[in-house]
Amino acid sequence: MAGASSREGVARFQPRNPAWEQKSREIFERQSFMRMIGARIVALSPGTCDIELPYRDDLCQQNIYLHGGAITSIADTSCGIASSTLLAPEAGILSVEFKYNMMAPAAGERFIARGRVIRPGRTLTIAESAVFAVQNGVETEIGRMLATMMFLEGKGAMQGAAA
Amino acid sequence: MAGASSREGVARFQPRNPAWEQKSREIFERQSFMRMIGARIVALSPGTCDIELPYRDDLCQQNIYLHGGAITSIADTSCGIASSTLLAPEAGILSVEFKYNMMAPAAGERFIARGRVIRPGRTLTIAESAVFAVQNGVETEIGRMLATMMFLEGKGAMQGAAA
Amino acid sequence: MAGASSREGVARFQPRNPAWEQKSREIFERQSFMRMIGARIVALSPGTCDIELPYRDDLCQQNIYLHGGAITSIADTSCGIASSTLLAPEAGILSVEFKYNMMAPAAGERFIARGRVIRPGRTLTIAESAVFAVQNGVETEIGRMLATMMFLEGKGAMQGAAA
Amino acid sequence: MAGASSREGVARFQPRNPAWEQKSREIFERQSFMRMIGARIVALSPGTCDIELPYRDDLCQQNIYLHGGAITSIADTSCGIASSTLLAPEAGILSVEFKYNMMAPAAGERFIARGRVIRPGRTLTIAESAVFAVQNGVETEIGRMLATMMFLEGKGAMQGAAA
Repeated sequence: MAGASSREGVARFQPRNPAWEQKSREIFERQSFMRMIGARIVALSPGTCDIELPYRDDLCQQNIYLHGGAITSIADTSCGIASSTLLAPEAGILSVEFKYNMMAPAAGERFIARGRVIRPGRTLTIAESAVFAVQNGVETEIGRMLATMMFLEGKGAMQGAAA
Repeated sequence: MAGASSREGVARFQPRNPAWEQKSREIFERQSFMRMIGARIVALSPGTCDIELPYRDDLCQQNIYLHGGAITSIADTSCGIASSTLLAPEAGILSVEFKYNMMAPAAGERFIARGRVIRPGRTLTIAESAVFAVQNGVETEIGRMLATMMFLEGKGAMQGAAA
Repeated sequence: MAGASSREGVARFQPRNPAWEQKSREIFERQSFMRMIGARIVALSPGTCDIELPYRDDLCQQNIYLHGGAITSIADTSCGIASSTLLAPEAGILSVEFKYNMMAPAAGERFIARGRVIRPGRTLTIAESAVFAVQNGVETEIGRMLATMMFLEGKGAMQGAAA
Repeated sequence: MAGASSREGVARFQPRNPAWEQKSREIFERQSFMRMIGARIVALSPGTCDIELPYRDDLCQQNIYLHGGAITSIADTSCGIASSTLLAPEAGILSVEFKYNMMAPAAGERFIARGRVIRPGRTLTIAESAVFAVQNGVETEIGRMLATMMFLEGKGAMQGAAA
């Protein structure tokens, strides 16, 4: 599968699973943590996933901005679901690692993490997420994630990255 | 202030604020997100903070392991609170960035993130967190974070890392 | 200064130093390590810097691909020089931290690290670099960096990120 | 293989290859970039590797400190060689990604990167490196790396992390 950079604006990936959309949405819906914080998928295509999280005052840090952990959670998930669209039918996925830069305070009515696959692979897939705060209709980029995802074949799929 | 590595086992830091413990606990208690997921401080000393999170089935990813975002949230906070013990009385703190490696599935009855300051500084402080899962009394290290925190002086303290 | 994302394809930054180009080129030319490995700037504009490194057989790892350290060196420098174009006249710059993902083997006749400022700030600036290998005229993205740079005002500028 | 944390001070790993030392030294010696900058292994045991780099004025950034890229190169290699001691006889290794925090200026007569495996795995191994500057016999920690290595079985071993 040829790589494609979201930087060029035209990431084009070919799913290996005809039922990629259903599978990716199921993975998301099984994540009780996403449901609990109020996150939902607002866009999904092969290699991309946007997740939205409305502000809630039980998701904050000490200064009533959204907690970095809540923001990171949707960024990680946006990378994971974006990558999951490229999974083979029987494969699973897990996050190996990520780095997240908080560039501005998470102040807004809602937050959108836009996950994009940078480079798909047989075993490892590299993805990024750009996180935006929306306030009075204006989007500001507040963070950026660079992440490594792992595809796991077959039954023993879910044993952890270094298992 | 001289640096000290937690790798040597004897990190010794001198707080600048006599009321460091009260201040650090207040910062934690103001974080509504920590309260909401059920996290609490179980150890605190100058330059260190351990945060515990019991398993809850609304904090999971698709395989009933704890969601990486929930784990990262306590790891980030353990780095932030560990660093906050070294704040000057009037200063604030925010996370600049972190990287987190998921080394094993987050399977356990509870999880402990042990945050340690590696290198304190006037503006930037480097910290790490080792995250453990506890199952039947056995601790397994499941993840490692390396993080950069920023100290902010005075009133304009909370404007974001790149503001 | 308003942020701008290179993802949108139109990063526009306003330099604070009219002599930004001369200053950025001087910083690069003072880096003996860049000269020694054979790297040079091939493009420079406010907020961007492309650095090229021809293949050389004394820059390799064990499989005659270019060593990750050599590639990381030009990626780090491309982020630093891209950021330096936005420095105030008297300020200095240093790298706080970076993360680099190796996405494909560094096989090619030459390598280009395209550094872009994502979010400039008074103290911290976030930048990324996309690294490409060029072989028979074809560019392949082989790595991605996400980095934090620090601007240092005045004489004490060069004391290290956590000094 | 059970994980072990270097934080506990007693990392104990069992090599899978009786000729681990010879193999790890050969990997290092095949890295022309290490030879070119003047780096050498000063300590090696299962799961650990210390690499020393003497100061040289052609390895510097703009302020006559050692270039972050040179330092990162020995840190990456110390993680890779430490991990390589745990390779199966026929396997290969490559760096997937790393993050490096520069905590203090790289000022000294020589530099030592102490690589340690945190968590070995069948496919991915997590390692860290603590980098020290030595000046007048005094060691100061100047940086910290957290890295992901990949073990590759058989002939196709060297195709890149996302190939």
